[in-house]
Amino acid sequence: MKTQVAIIGAGPAGLMLGHLLRRAGVACVVVERRSREYVEGRIRAGVLERTTTDILDRLEINQRMHGEGLPHDGFYLADGERLIHIDVARLTGKQVMVYGQTELTKDLIAAAPGRDLEIIWEAGDVALHDVESDAPSVTFLRDGVQQRLQARVIAGCDGFHGPSRKAIPGSRRREYERLYPFGWLGILAEVPPCNDELIYANHERGFALASMRSNTRSRYYIQVPIDEPLEAWPDDRLWDELALRLGPEAAARLTRGPSLEKSIAPLRSYVFEPMRHGNLFLAGDAAHIVPPTGAKGLNLAASDVAYLSDALIGWFTRDDEEGLRHYASRALARVWKAERFSWSLTRLMHRFPDEGAFERRMQLAELDYIASSTAAQTAIAENYVGLPL
Amino acid sequence: MKTQVAIIGAGPAGLMLGHLLRRAGVACVVVERRSREYVEGRIRAGVLERTTTDILDRLEINQRMHGEGLPHDGFYLADGERLIHIDVARLTGKQVMVYGQTELTKDLIAAAPGRDLEIIWEAGDVALHDVESDAPSVTFLRDGVQQRLQARVIAGCDGFHGPSRKAIPGSRRREYERLYPFGWLGILAEVPPCNDELIYANHERGFALASMRSNTRSRYYIQVPIDEPLEAWPDDRLWDELALRLGPEAAARLTRGPSLEKSIAPLRSYVFEPMRHGNLFLAGDAAHIVPPTGAKGLNLAASDVAYLSDALIGWFTRDDEEGLRHYASRALARVWKAERFSWSLTRLMHRFPDEGAFERRMQLAELDYIASSTAAQTAIAENYVGLPL
Repeated sequence: MKTQVAIIGAGPAGLMLGHLLRRAGVACVVVERRSREYVEGRIRAGVLERTTTDILDRLEINQRMHGEGLPHDGFYLADGERLIHIDVARLTGKQVMVYGQTELTKDLIAAAPGRDLEIIWEAGDVALHDVESDAPSVTFLRDGVQQRLQARVIAGCDGFHGPSRKAIPGSRRREYERLYPFGWLGILAEVPPCNDELIYANHERGFALASMRSNTRSRYYIQVPIDEPLEAWPDDRLWDELALRLGPEAAARLTRGPSLEKSIAPLRSYVFEPMRHGNLFLAGDAAHIVPPTGAKGLNLAASDVAYLSDALIGWFTRDDEEGLRHYASRALARVWKAERFSWSLTRLMHRFPDEGAFERRMQLAELDYIASSTAAQTAIAENYVGLPL
Repeated sequence: MKTQVAIIGAGPAGLMLGHLLRRAGVACVVVERRSREYVEGRIRAGVLERTTTDILDRLEINQRMHGEGLPHDGFYLADGERLIHIDVARLTGKQVMVYGQTELTKDLIAAAPGRDLEIIWEAGDVALHDVESDAPSVTFLRDGVQQRLQARVIAGCDGFHGPSRKAIPGSRRREYERLYPFGWLGILAEVPPCNDELIYANHERGFALASMRSNTRSRYYIQVPIDEPLEAWPDDRLWDELALRLGPEAAARLTRGPSLEKSIAPLRSYVFEPMRHGNLFLAGDAAHIVPPTGAKGLNLAASDVAYLSDALIGWFTRDDEEGLRHYASRALARVWKAERFSWSLTRLMHRFPDEGAFERRMQLAELDYIASSTAAQTAIAENYVGLPL
């Protein structure tokens, strides 16, 4: 098999990139290790920046998003006593879109055949070859038979655990990492949300987040110790804890229901450099991870894809190498700022077991300052809605 | 001796409070442990917020400040490569005033006799009595003889090491503290400053600050390990290090000269609650310490004094207790926000020995974000120039 761009990974990064390239007439094939059912079933983030919705609008794969998604004008920070409204629309002129990554992925997959985007599912033992050359390739097993996909460029969109990043030699790598001493226990339930916008709460007992996937499906999280067993949190205990941490106003409107999904996820900040090596280009979680506070993960994948698709289209259709040459530095400049925002919102909103009374008061003073300052609210809002490309 | 307000401490807090009270006809006496020469010789901060200059304007003890002080429109943050201008005047409509605390203290002392403000110098063994009663008093030794100053209220303006805070019983105290793993090595020299506005630099080798007291007198600082011996830094080595950390642009304009003063100061964040106990009211460093980054120490003393003088004048002249009842909560709300700003600017601009490559990149990303965002610059500027009372 031969193509121009071999895309590894059929998550949102790989699928958006594939669609953007096909729309411009660039040949590409997406190779995915998992089954279509598995990929469509993954529960992930749910708040889309303008950067991300812009791509879906450009692709015209946006009908269901605009029909079922919930445009939000802002969100709330809570300090245990009050709700502080961050009026993103008023402060920045932009909205965010609440629409599950799961749904967006389904839309991108469903649109693939009609757009002539080939996705190879259940590709085993994916391996990258000759990425420093002008003839890189990807090999994989399909129905027990090894296949080789020849390409001019490989796009590594295969997430944190995929093989792409590992194909870059150790001598070239720089890795930056911070692990957090807690995880997020999440529950998905078929109940109406307790609030029309998201609430990020920093309660004495720890962080909580009230979010939603639709007007009938809610997604809640609480901070728990990193080694917490899931069995310690039967639904009832989790709803009780949410009612406490979100505060009386939200608790009064909290509708409980059985969990459709319940899991504990660790929090990590991670950046890998470089994002380009030879003719291998990384995008999304393959190159960087943010803690979920602020919902930047999917949106950073989208901004990588915006830069990378422009660069590849410029090169394949106009022989213009400029975009490819600057891809890594452009993408990383935005990645580092989003890493900073996610890290700083995580620090502001969680209880850190090793921090004392002074640091707790610093969190409360910062929330108090934010509540009183239009400039501080604007700084948060412009990061939340997405910094310009 | 009898008076209405016994003021302990003839630093800027006690002197400003004394002048404000005398101007309103409230009787007060200032008791100071040190000699006038000692107090007038102390080298301290040098950037005054509007809150502080407003008090001096109200007192009309402002002639030399307006004649010799340097109004500044802004300052610079440096990230090792470039200078980021924070245009405070454009962003907030206000300026700061560069005028040494030493000079301001001299002005307040010089004006005391003409304003009928009594200052008792070299008062030994200062002790507070019956602060919970309506007849508190202060005793002290003068020329070997114990004296007692009877008052209705005691104002504790005697700094971090004074006796006032210690007169509040342990069961009532809450203390919040953070020590930093480095100190500031400062040099004062009779040379023109390298820049017309202050430069706060976060260099790979550590923090540096270029500041000034006048157009002919400069004040520079560098971050050093907390246990650094002063002898390790002869003037030449210090100038060399400053030239490196401030970056090529500033280094090219750096004029060297012999040190008039050179010392290492530790950095501390500290808040004591409550600021009122019975008829004892704390103001300034007696109740809180900030690290010097952002120059909030003297200015917080001034805002405490603004609240406290209004409260005492209301009570003594109009029998209005409202101000006194709310003094502690009003002062502390502003104190916590200034503590937050000082702590956060300290964290942004220093190298922390226990932090790794990820945290370093977070500092650089934050500086990069600040450089690109009017909202972020405005948030810094409004804190720098002083949040509203």
